[in-house]
Amino acid sequence: MAHRPGRHFLQIPGPTNVPDRVLRAIDRSTIDHRSSEFSGLGKDCLKGLKAVFQTDGPVIVYPSSATGAWEAALVNTLNAGDKVLAFETGYFVNLWTQMACNLGLRVEMIPGDWRHGVDATKVAETLVEDRGHEIKAIMVVHNETSTGVTTDIPAVRRGIDAAEHPALLMVDTVSSLASIDYRHDEWGVDVTISGSQKGMMLPPGLSFNAIGHRATEASKRSSLPKSYWRWAEMLENNSRGFFPYTPATNLLYGLREALAMLQEEGLANVFARHARLAEATRCAARQWGFEMVALDPRECSNALTALFMPEGFDERAFRAVVLDKFNMSLGSGLGKLAGRVFRIGHLGDFNELMLAGTLAGIEMGFQVAGIPHCRGGAGAALKYIAEQIA
Amino acid sequence: MAHRPGRHFLQIPGPTNVPDRVLRAIDRSTIDHRSSEFSGLGKDCLKGLKAVFQTDGPVIVYPSSATGAWEAALVNTLNAGDKVLAFETGYFVNLWTQMACNLGLRVEMIPGDWRHGVDATKVAETLVEDRGHEIKAIMVVHNETSTGVTTDIPAVRRGIDAAEHPALLMVDTVSSLASIDYRHDEWGVDVTISGSQKGMMLPPGLSFNAIGHRATEASKRSSLPKSYWRWAEMLENNSRGFFPYTPATNLLYGLREALAMLQEEGLANVFARHARLAEATRCAARQWGFEMVALDPRECSNALTALFMPEGFDERAFRAVVLDKFNMSLGSGLGKLAGRVFRIGHLGDFNELMLAGTLAGIEMGFQVAGIPHCRGGAGAALKYIAEQIA
Amino acid sequence: MAHRPGRHFLQIPGPTNVPDRVLRAIDRSTIDHRSSEFSGLGKDCLKGLKAVFQTDGPVIVYPSSATGAWEAALVNTLNAGDKVLAFETGYFVNLWTQMACNLGLRVEMIPGDWRHGVDATKVAETLVEDRGHEIKAIMVVHNETSTGVTTDIPAVRRGIDAAEHPALLMVDTVSSLASIDYRHDEWGVDVTISGSQKGMMLPPGLSFNAIGHRATEASKRSSLPKSYWRWAEMLENNSRGFFPYTPATNLLYGLREALAMLQEEGLANVFARHARLAEATRCAARQWGFEMVALDPRECSNALTALFMPEGFDERAFRAVVLDKFNMSLGSGLGKLAGRVFRIGHLGDFNELMLAGTLAGIEMGFQVAGIPHCRGGAGAALKYIAEQIA
Amino acid sequence: MAHRPGRHFLQIPGPTNVPDRVLRAIDRSTIDHRSSEFSGLGKDCLKGLKAVFQTDGPVIVYPSSATGAWEAALVNTLNAGDKVLAFETGYFVNLWTQMACNLGLRVEMIPGDWRHGVDATKVAETLVEDRGHEIKAIMVVHNETSTGVTTDIPAVRRGIDAAEHPALLMVDTVSSLASIDYRHDEWGVDVTISGSQKGMMLPPGLSFNAIGHRATEASKRSSLPKSYWRWAEMLENNSRGFFPYTPATNLLYGLREALAMLQEEGLANVFARHARLAEATRCAARQWGFEMVALDPRECSNALTALFMPEGFDERAFRAVVLDKFNMSLGSGLGKLAGRVFRIGHLGDFNELMLAGTLAGIEMGFQVAGIPHCRGGAGAALKYIAEQIA
Repeated sequence: MAHRPGRHFLQIPGPTNVPDRVLRAIDRSTIDHRSSEFSGLGKDCLKGLKAVFQTDGPVIVYPSSATGAWEAALVNTLNAGDKVLAFETGYFVNLWTQMACNLGLRVEMIPGDWRHGVDATKVAETLVEDRGHEIKAIMVVHNETSTGVTTDIPAVRRGIDAAEHPALLMVDTVSSLASIDYRHDEWGVDVTISGSQKGMMLPPGLSFNAIGHRATEASKRSSLPKSYWRWAEMLENNSRGFFPYTPATNLLYGLREALAMLQEEGLANVFARHARLAEATRCAARQWGFEMVALDPRECSNALTALFMPEGFDERAFRAVVLDKFNMSLGSGLGKLAGRVFRIGHLGDFNELMLAGTLAGIEMGFQVAGIPHCRGGAGAALKYIAEQIA
Repeated sequence: MAHRPGRHFLQIPGPTNVPDRVLRAIDRSTIDHRSSEFSGLGKDCLKGLKAVFQTDGPVIVYPSSATGAWEAALVNTLNAGDKVLAFETGYFVNLWTQMACNLGLRVEMIPGDWRHGVDATKVAETLVEDRGHEIKAIMVVHNETSTGVTTDIPAVRRGIDAAEHPALLMVDTVSSLASIDYRHDEWGVDVTISGSQKGMMLPPGLSFNAIGHRATEASKRSSLPKSYWRWAEMLENNSRGFFPYTPATNLLYGLREALAMLQEEGLANVFARHARLAEATRCAARQWGFEMVALDPRECSNALTALFMPEGFDERAFRAVVLDKFNMSLGSGLGKLAGRVFRIGHLGDFNELMLAGTLAGIEMGFQVAGIPHCRGGAGAALKYIAEQIA
Repeated sequence: MAHRPGRHFLQIPGPTNVPDRVLRAIDRSTIDHRSSEFSGLGKDCLKGLKAVFQTDGPVIVYPSSATGAWEAALVNTLNAGDKVLAFETGYFVNLWTQMACNLGLRVEMIPGDWRHGVDATKVAETLVEDRGHEIKAIMVVHNETSTGVTTDIPAVRRGIDAAEHPALLMVDTVSSLASIDYRHDEWGVDVTISGSQKGMMLPPGLSFNAIGHRATEASKRSSLPKSYWRWAEMLENNSRGFFPYTPATNLLYGLREALAMLQEEGLANVFARHARLAEATRCAARQWGFEMVALDPRECSNALTALFMPEGFDERAFRAVVLDKFNMSLGSGLGKLAGRVFRIGHLGDFNELMLAGTLAGIEMGFQVAGIPHCRGGAGAALKYIAEQIA
Repeated sequence: MAHRPGRHFLQIPGPTNVPDRVLRAIDRSTIDHRSSEFSGLGKDCLKGLKAVFQTDGPVIVYPSSATGAWEAALVNTLNAGDKVLAFETGYFVNLWTQMACNLGLRVEMIPGDWRHGVDATKVAETLVEDRGHEIKAIMVVHNETSTGVTTDIPAVRRGIDAAEHPALLMVDTVSSLASIDYRHDEWGVDVTISGSQKGMMLPPGLSFNAIGHRATEASKRSSLPKSYWRWAEMLENNSRGFFPYTPATNLLYGLREALAMLQEEGLANVFARHARLAEATRCAARQWGFEMVALDPRECSNALTALFMPEGFDERAFRAVVLDKFNMSLGSGLGKLAGRVFRIGHLGDFNELMLAGTLAGIEMGFQVAGIPHCRGGAGAALKYIAEQIA
């Protein structure tokens, strides 16, 4: 392809802009995955991940897309025909429940408008009604990548506890981990699912399961067929820094580097930075007069912002202009939001001036594409940031 | 870790020495996996793979270890409780059949001595006896990575055909693809399984299924639970250069580069090179007086050579000396060969002088570790190579 | 050093942001500089450079900083005690003439205010007065990196021609080459000096001399002591793609890649892009109410913009805030402009959104540092760009 | 160029095989050379170099080929017409003295046979005869890269001291630094010259001057024209970690990494490794029946070995075969040795198995090219190494 000058702005909500330190770490000779040098690498990664998931328990790393970690969570804990509960918060929870169906589970989906997180009251109500404890797991997406809406996980936990229901709580943090505060242990999550290519700043190709005690217990009784995703062999090998089959060594080099970077910055600073850049993006959206998908301000995502296009304008045409004229990729509308919503990723290895470029690209894109808007969105964002920094 | 001078010799039978061109290709910014630029990448990879598998049919790429591609082959074509036939040719076929059991299949394993490939006569006999066509698939490893023994796949095919049996032929080419001649279409294979980290010269993290017509048909009737590995969505998305979930983009950059390198060299030259370097290795082994695991010269692998240690000497201690003193990783004995056999990988991005260094490291390792041997193995290999080149 | 999230904005007027393609090209094994493979590399570079200098004559590549190419231009063409004429347009011409003094030349410096380019009328007048043709060369900086002021080289040439004076015309294009239109042959320049780390998008370490016929002739009579910089051996070796001493091979890999990128984009497009981004920067400056160093709009640089700080505010403190809070490097005031002027580099591998980030960082920096300014500079720039693009 | 499988063996005596750690360090964004981050880089490099030169005094780093550092040593210390003394030990001292002539110095060259180092007795005799102290400097090459012959520098120093002569001792260590023990301070050297692309394991593009007290004093009186090479500005800027003009930042990244690697291995271990690999190479040469250029065993280089071809065989044809058939670059015969001598580089980031590959390539090259030799040279080398290691 012909050269396009300057850096591409990859502002989809993941994969995110991979920092050079991570790319350079990956660009290293592969080593023997049964050597003591590898064992050191494995242990570093597995230990560092605990800090990011805020757990003392094990975190498993798969050589797979994050979609694989969804499957792993289900097949390791459930039995054929088990019922799982889900809340229709957006496109990705739909994919996940479709997967559950594919795997022979029964899904009870509580309808939703794609503009709110999971309603914890509804969780409690549904579980109270499930007197026979047929529901074996609740599948929640912490941060819906299709809508930019988050769910209050501690509230969901309280809902489950209020119902005194034994269902496992499974949480997808694919687009929130290492961007939005998330606490596996403190929040009482049983299985946390995540991936490498968003807040973790890696290319896609690794996925994670953080596993709580109750999930481990469930895995001993689970009868769904599984082999690649089996936790037991993973945990056994991981204890020595190894894996039951050939791991994606070079991506692990990158993971070790990314974990070091997160530690250098400090997780609290990482979360604060994402909050600041997200609020600046929302300042821009408000100024432009664009409606966010998220209706409840407390549920707005700090990782991405999804905005409705004005009536009569297609996000696909708009994003094509932005890519063509300004060398920036924005996220498309997914599922029923296709054509109507575009998404701005502001997560991962991202800072104030990259955001300024991002918002400028959107605002100029509006002008070039003839999308009605109030000018000054980028300016409003800068004003907010400058005040925060000062 | 402290610096060790010079290059590490990674002479395990995979992962292999990843060439700089591939590493540098991977070391590039991740792009939007829904963009037209990505579509071009996807199509290049999918097309290039057909040439390597020597097939006109589809090749599927998973973001997973090769172990995942084993699972994909089984869950896409079979039904719970189906019987599969396998031949005990070594450690990896055992792992694969263990996986089949994990997934709820019944395995009929024909015992073997780990020193021969699959006996095609036995295939025919077994299938003839299976009058009810209970056996739904035959699992064969083209090149047993644990033993350095290959199987004559066309002969196996003839055995099946002679029995007029409808079982699917599934072949693992993890350590033979792009090293030893392999022809998916011509040889009538139904599913070919492979991975990225051996002859394909990539880091681990990608795996492959080449799919024949009969396998595609079987996949329509297969009821084993599956989601991540489903061929149908893959094939549908692949037709446009895309994937149903986030692919391992950066490894695909590497795949495109590796495919270009294989094309530049020419597959026939790649195979001839592997044959030459393998025969040179066997010259060395004969001179040293070391016994190969492979008993039939026609079945010796051109990708690796597995050698028995002299009685009373442990391969683990020997390999530790070689790693410590000569900065070279050799392959361990696996399964029942642990302690008794070491393996020399001579596949992938490898040439005459790298082999010379490898054999020198082994021969010097014998001396330093006090392993009885006849000197001159490396010299015998060089003599053979020089004659071949001249 | 601890991790700072996101990309650093390197907006000094060089070294510029080196594109990944160039960095990755450099990150390759060094080869034998006497091999035919190297010869191909050398020829590619030398040929490609002619296009960029817009010359049919030779371009010499030194393994040195651009400062070395200044020295090369002088020592190859002049004799001890020769008089050279220069115009005080800024800091760098002062450094260059200081070098001339160091090398035993006599410098006639026409005073200037650092806010205008060379006055071509003055060139003509001075040369007319030099009846004895004592002046052997005129040293002109095409784009003064310290001030953002350009000189009209064709006008200077006309001035010399009007005076019918044989002095050589030497032009420094260190910060204009491949950013601002420059034509060695058409404009009648005798020696053009440049470097790798600005418009050429490379790290520092290579420098260039484009050589006209009259300079070549002068070099045959030049008696200044020289060895490393001698053109004769360079030209002789270059004809075969080689160099008289070990060249900086890996930087040449980068040069070949950068030349390919310039060709892909097209020089005319490169110049138009720089013009657009520069004018956008000036829009911002005007809105902020900041005074440019350049007084004549026709002489404003398209590579950088130098702005006076408001009275009572030190650029050093301001730039420190911008670096600390916004991870961006701006150029300092040099020489007599220290403390009073800061410089914005907008050259090289640079695009609209990077400029948006740059200007946002400056505007937010004003706010955070309490520098008086009118808001909306970044917005004015975006407006200009959107209009240009639309 | 079409892909050649496996690694190229770059066994010329420099540039050497650049380790991946160094290449990856260079492959990093360029930073502001006036920033505090850069200052840290500069100080790290300048400090680390002192350890490698074994000096407490300053070491200067030029963005130039090593040839530039030759020039720097001369122009900083000498005056026009000064006499310098040199000993004809090989091709490179000839180039250096030619440079001295180019720069207006008078050279007294003591003839030599290119097969011995400098005769210290001759040094003393010559200087004693120079009663008027016309000789201002003695130019010695520590390790002649064209011949593989070293000079005993302490003996030369004793020769000068015995003559009570004030001439400066200048030593070229381009191909010995960080490979063969060298002690700037202890050995009383006044200026040491070196470069980046050999024992320092970097690509070419940096050069060095280590400067003793007497040289610093001389530099204050030196009147040779100079500007780029001036020590004074360098030393002044270096004290703050900076440089008087734009440095080759990315190569300095590599330098810092290379210095770290040398420190991790330990200089004494580095020298011992080179000694071991060099002696192994000489074992091979003796077995082959090839004559070394070095006639005195005490003067054999540990960095390279230069061997005469058998009568009637041209090294150029031989090296072409080795490159074509075995993907290895060997060093050519230089100057009057062209056609008759080939050189084996065994320095830098090099280890036992790389040497094994190198010697195997030579021995197989002999066979393929029909060069008469006794077999078993590579084997003899391996035997020696194994004994040393055991």
